Amino acid sequence: MKIAKFIKQNMALALALKIVGDRWTLMILSSSLSKVYRFNEFERALGINRNLLSSRLDKLIRAGLMEKRKYQEKPARYEYLITDVGKELRPVLVGLAIWSEKHLAKDIPVISMVHENCGTKAEIYVYCDACERVITNEEISPNLIPAQNFESTAAE
Amino acid sequence: MKIAKFIKQNMALALALKIVGDRWTLMILSSSLSKVYRFNEFERALGINRNLLSSRLDKLIRAGLMEKRKYQEKPARYEYLITDVGKELRPVLVGLAIWSEKHLAKDIPVISMVHENCGTKAEIYVYCDACERVITNEEISPNLIPAQNFESTAAE
Repeated sequence: MKIAKFIKQNMALALALKIVGDRWTLMILSSSLSKVYRFNEFERALGINRNLLSSRLDKLIRAGLMEKRKYQEKPARYEYLITDVGKELRPVLVGLAIWSEKHLAKDIPVISMVHENCGTKAEIYVYCDACERVITNEEISPNLIPAQNFESTAAE
Repeated sequence: MKIAKFIKQNMALALALKIVGDRWTLMILSSSLSKVYRFNEFERALGINRNLLSSRLDKLIRAGLMEKRKYQEKPARYEYLITDVGKELRPVLVGLAIWSEKHLAKDIPVISMVHENCGTKAEIYVYCDACERVITNEEISPNLIPAQNFESTAAE
């Protein structure tokens, strides 16, 4: 495969990983989705260093994946809420958890992500809205949509 | 939410992120899925430092996501192939790319992941095999399956 083509194909992924391409950031997002909101709650739930937590929250806020909201006046206290943009990463996080359950978590008690209505284990699929069916990995193809400004590289 | 419950719920995700929770690892996997096989090809495609590439490849091999294969005898040369376990992360990587296209890659040329048959943009969904339908984020629930040995914490 030509390098330039490869870089373009991986551009969107590289952009995403600049923001969410580290373990703590993804654990913080997952916590947010599990209704963890406050600094001390994140700290305790994840066992994360305060400086690290603070820098990751700031990064997520700047990127529009989380927002900071004052919930108390005196003294001023804040909570950190996941935005709609952040929430849309849920299938990715669920997909990682499902993959992990299948391949890594063989001798530990695993958490199945289940469909609440029926209790069936949830699966993650790539789906074609037009064909109204699940499509396999082999059927997916990256398709370059040209635009004006393309100067970046895949990853710094 | 109780901390212990939260930790258990995030256990599978934390385990996955111990292996694939960094940007380079995910870029390497994505490259593998795009038919990049050789050390120098990864190096050029990603602009990654050789030591970093080497350590990430070793980690992926140890975790069973990639395998090293000799493709030439004299001098001995190797290529790095993604395993079936690694390939199953494709929906996660596609999901990240799709999310990025929608929210981040607004003024760059994006690569749509499309369904080859019909050219429609692929979407990623959580799906219930029993109900035979796509389920929303709100319908998913983590469900703890108890087992014997549970000593670990969510993330180191």
